[in-house]
Formats: sequence, structure tokens, C-alpha cells
Amino acid sequence: MERMGSNRLDVARHKTRQVQVGTVVVGGSAPVSVQSMCTTRTTDVAGTLAQICELEQAGCEIIRVAVPDEAALDGFSAICDASPIPVVADIHFDHMLAIGAARRGAAALRINPGNIGSMERVDAVIDEAGNARIPIRIGVNAGSLDPKVAERGDLSLAQKLVASCESFVRHFEERGFGDIVLSAKAHSVPVTIQTYRMLSNCLPEYPLHVGVTEAGTLRQGTVKNCAAVGVLLEEGIGNTMRLSLTADPIEEVDVAWELLGALGMRRMRPELVSCPTCGRTQVNLIGMAEEVEVRLRDVRAPISVAVMGCVVNGPGEARDADIGIACGRGRGVIFAGGEPLRSVPEDDLVDELFNEIARRF
Amino acid sequence: MERMGSNRLDVARHKTRQVQVGTVVVGGSAPVSVQSMCTTRTTDVAGTLAQICELEQAGCEIIRVAVPDEAALDGFSAICDASPIPVVADIHFDHMLAIGAARRGAAALRINPGNIGSMERVDAVIDEAGNARIPIRIGVNAGSLDPKVAERGDLSLAQKLVASCESFVRHFEERGFGDIVLSAKAHSVPVTIQTYRMLSNCLPEYPLHVGVTEAGTLRQGTVKNCAAVGVLLEEGIGNTMRLSLTADPIEEVDVAWELLGALGMRRMRPELVSCPTCGRTQVNLIGMAEEVEVRLRDVRAPISVAVMGCVVNGPGEARDADIGIACGRGRGVIFAGGEPLRSVPEDDLVDELFNEIARRF
Repeated sequence: MERMGSNRLDVARHKTRQVQVGTVVVGGSAPVSVQSMCTTRTTDVAGTLAQICELEQAGCEIIRVAVPDEAALDGFSAICDASPIPVVADIHFDHMLAIGAARRGAAALRINPGNIGSMERVDAVIDEAGNARIPIRIGVNAGSLDPKVAERGDLSLAQKLVASCESFVRHFEERGFGDIVLSAKAHSVPVTIQTYRMLSNCLPEYPLHVGVTEAGTLRQGTVKNCAAVGVLLEEGIGNTMRLSLTADPIEEVDVAWELLGALGMRRMRPELVSCPTCGRTQVNLIGMAEEVEVRLRDVRAPISVAVMGCVVNGPGEARDADIGIACGRGRGVIFAGGEPLRSVPEDDLVDELFNEIARRF
Repeated sequence: MERMGSNRLDVARHKTRQVQVGTVVVGGSAPVSVQSMCTTRTTDVAGTLAQICELEQAGCEIIRVAVPDEAALDGFSAICDASPIPVVADIHFDHMLAIGAARRGAAALRINPGNIGSMERVDAVIDEAGNARIPIRIGVNAGSLDPKVAERGDLSLAQKLVASCESFVRHFEERGFGDIVLSAKAHSVPVTIQTYRMLSNCLPEYPLHVGVTEAGTLRQGTVKNCAAVGVLLEEGIGNTMRLSLTADPIEEVDVAWELLGALGMRRMRPELVSCPTCGRTQVNLIGMAEEVEVRLRDVRAPISVAVMGCVVNGPGEARDADIGIACGRGRGVIFAGGEPLRSVPEDDLVDELFNEIARRF
């Protein structure tokens, strides 16, 4: 784990086996992938596909859809056929829906063996996934633990989640099925961190799907997911992630990419470096930074762009940004690689910055 | 470091000495305090005090104001006198401003010795802070390192930041001054994590002021700060924090408290636990969760409140919430401590939830 001398986090990812979710490799040396879940009704094929395409454009790499009933299964194959990214079927309670989804082209199944009814029914799902050569995510939640461990008063919630996973994994292994991704989500950040640390320790061979569940609305959910998943990724734990937010799923994907970028693990988009304003600032820096942020959405190059408010925190401090502006009174400077390029009137600064970006990147 | 069996993060905070910033203790066994910085002109005494009061209401515990010139000093004593929280003077370049601020009632000074001009001038500031019995935050930034280390090609940025701090601290110690808080901020999350880990290791006796600088607008800045500061706090590093955002400073305070709450370290407000919506949801859960979030702003009790969309993620999964609602089709259930209280029509759910909160907490 070499950490010095770099803005990149060169964390040795814990080595797990690899599974293949459609075209996306999860685990092993594969990059941490970004997932989300449709909020549309699965029976609304056109609406679901429209949301999947929008999410794919935002950087979503694996999509999950709920299959709550037979009616949802009807549209499911059309969704799998037309989706630009692998589709995972999310199943609860009814093992026949899991079997149906596997037969209709699911790239993976997500089940919680604790709520499927019996291990015989789980076995039927395992066998069908084996036939279809697709992985299963064992997704354990606090609300549906393995009944054998749920009532044990000697275990913490994190220990119960891990014990449930372990018990289910051993069952899958005995059935000869190892194409497994594991998740055990909680809404508490400390419980999430504890649980995944233990999972990575007890079941080191299986890729982990990380995230905080029921994390809340955009603001609180962003904080909780970034704290929990940030800690885990920084330790090398986690192979694919879904950051649950009670918000448009586009936001989940945006926050996931921001987090991967912030940790220096993967960057899909430009990074904005902007200073907090203070009593020294002579220009409307918040407005300027927001304008730059919005216009950067059209830039694909993963460059870092600085918007600095004054001489104190100017080009010097943003020396490692690829390009940026530093604002004074009425005028500002465009700089690249820490060197000033030219002075520009304040009103033209943002336009000139984007001209320069278009010219260089 | 006992981590099991709790939603609280019982991390042993690295033991530092304690300093006193006005009425707020920083370091040692003191809780991690929340800071922000005014965006008003310091010459605008009324405007600055209004912002300080608003920030204090939001939970800000220490406030910093820029003192960029003599004119700013004029209003500074009135601000210190009337502020409900300790006021730190932020000084660059001119040591006479630091001396002036110390004489006018600053609760602490923040200087970067690397841009004050000479170590003789730094000494004059140290001596004045000693007379005034106030601490100094040595705030090193990438843009103004100790000149002796700035140009060394053999050091990473993190190592340069730490070497600058160390060199300045040794100078302060030789002058007989130990009332120090340290910060060494970068805009990169990995550099921030590396730097503070090394600082905590090399200079373990001094309290650390943590945060990411130039973190960007609300969204990106929240992600970067929560990832970096989340990792550090979870390791027991950090005694006071300012999460810089290019946004209204109220947001900095809100995000800081969300982070402390998420980590189970300190909670000032209610926590909202809400599930992501999915194809199973029968009600407008996003709208409902947002309404609950807004109305929770008026609740002071640090309770956890769940808003769950369906039977799968209902009361079972939110068992440890103090109170909550689980929504079905047209009706929902209010539950407390994992037990259902009563069924309520959908339209009355949120009102009934808040009636129950008012009754119980």
C-alpha cells in the first residue's frame, strides 16, 4: 500500500474472486463498478428502459430492477434485451420470480435467502442460476436475517449480518455454487463499516457490494454513504457499489462517481477545485464556481479545474490543477499547470476558461 | 477500540493536549467541535454578527473571520465582544494584523507562518498570543509551505505539508509557546488523509483541525470532506473541523453535523432513516421523506426517525429507529421501537408521525 507522493489512492484492493455480471467484471482486479436501481415500475418497459438509458449516460454500469410479481416478469426480458448495461433482478419472497428472471435474461439475481421461504426454494434458485451461468448476489439486510441467527442475543447487528452471510454462503458452496457477490447493508455507518470489515475478513474470496441502505435524502444520504463507503474503499474493501439515496437514482450515480474521483480511484469527469469564499473575496465566487460546475458537465476529459477567489489561495495552492482561474478585483488570471497564461476581465473569465479547456483537452 | 454491538463509533480519539479557544476546549478528551468561516466583510460589523448568530443557531461552535487589513481590525473588537461563540482571526501576510487582532479580543489566531514574511515577525505574533493567553492555529497550505521545504524534490506534497508543520512547531516550542492547533489542508482527499495520518504520528501532542480545502461546491465538497474527514475521524484523528464548501457557510455546519451524527460521534439533531424507493413502492416516498426532513428541522431531540416505503424494508429493518412510518397502499403504519402503534390513512401519516413525536420526545 504505497500512499506517498500522489493524489491517487494506490490502495491494494483485497483480492477476491471475479464474477461476471453481463459485460461487467466484479471483484478481483476489476475497477469498483457503479450500480443503481430503477424507480420505475418494471411493468412499464418503455419507462424503465428510458431510465436505464439516462442512468447509463450518467455513468451507471449495472442496473437493478425490482421483480415483485408475475406481471413484472412479463416486461423483464424486453428490458434485459434492450438495456445497454447488465440488468440484475431484485427478488424477495417468491423463488419462482427468481427462476423466471434467470430464464428471461437477468445478468444476475439479487436475493435475500432469509426471506425466500425455505432453503429448498433457495436451492431451486441456485440451480437455475447455475444453468443460466449467472451470479447471485446474496443481499442480507437487518430486516431479514438468517432465522437461525436473528434471535441470538449474544451477537451485535454487525455480527448477525456477517453470520447470516456466512451461513448462506456455506449453503451455496455445499450446493456447488460459488458465483457469489455479497452485501449486508445497514443504515448505520458504524454498523456498515464493522460489517464489511468482518465480511472481508471472514469471507475474503467473495466480491463485496458496498453501500449504506436507507441512507436518507440527498444531503444526509451523501454524507452517510461517503463516510461509510469512503472508509471501506480507502481500506481496499468493496468491489461494486450502490449508494442508496431517497432521490432520483441519477444522484446515486453522480455521488458514486464523485466519491471514486475524490479517492483518486476512478475518474469519469472533470474535477472542480474551488476555494471557500471568505472576507478577502472580491468577486461572486460561489456564482462563478457554480457556473463552471454546470458547464463542466459537457466536458468529458477527466481534468482538474480550479476556481480560486484571491491571491492567498490562488494559482500557488491550485498548482496541481490542470487549468484554472484566480480572481482579483475586476480582473482575473487564467493559469495552467500552476503557471499564469493571461489576465482577463472578470466578466470574460469563465468563457475564456472554457475556450482554453476546449483548446487544450 | 471496541466497535462491536453498537451504532456508536467508540473510537479511541488520539490523545492530544487541550487548548482553549474561548469557551470551547479543543483536543484531549473534548468532543470534535464544528467550525466555519464568515463570508461577510469584517468591516461590516452588523452583517458579520448576523451571520455568526445564524451559524451559531445552526450548530457552529467556533467562527473564523478574515482580517485582511487595518479597516477590518476596526470592527473586530465589536465582533468579538458581541459574538455568542469564540472568534478566530484569520491572518495572512501582515503580522501587525495578527498582533492587532490578539489585542482586540480574538479567541485564537490562525496564521500560516510561511506567508508572514520572516520568523522574527512570527515571533512577534507568538509573543503577543502568549501575552493574550490565546492559542495559535498553525495553518499550512500547499500554496504557502515553509520555504525551506517547498522546493525539495524528494518530498511528496503530504510530506512537505507535514515537514512545514513540524518545522514551524519546533520554532514555536523553542519560543516557549505550545498552545497550538495544527492544520495542513489540501484539496485532494488522498493527500489530506496521508497528511493528517503523518501529522498525528509525528506531532501527536497537538490537536488537529481537519478538513479538505477548496473542496468545491455543495455536492462535490460534501463528498470530498465526508470521505477524507470520515476516514480520519473513524481512525481517531481530528479534534475540530471545518468542512470548506463553496456555498453558504450554514451548509458547512450542516454537513459537519451530519457527518458527526453519521459516525455516531455526536448528534445534535434527529436522524432520518429512509429507504431508497424502488419498483415496489406504492406511495410518493421521496416527497414524504423530504417533508419529514423539513419538519424534523424543528425537532431538537436527537432521535432516529424512519420513513419506509414497503413491507420488505419496513418496521423490521428500521427496528432500531426510535419512531417511524411504513407505507403500504393508501395506508401506513406508525411504529416505535420496531413495534407497530396503529394504522393511519396515507394522507395523515406524516402529521400523525409528528403528533407522536411531540407526544413522546
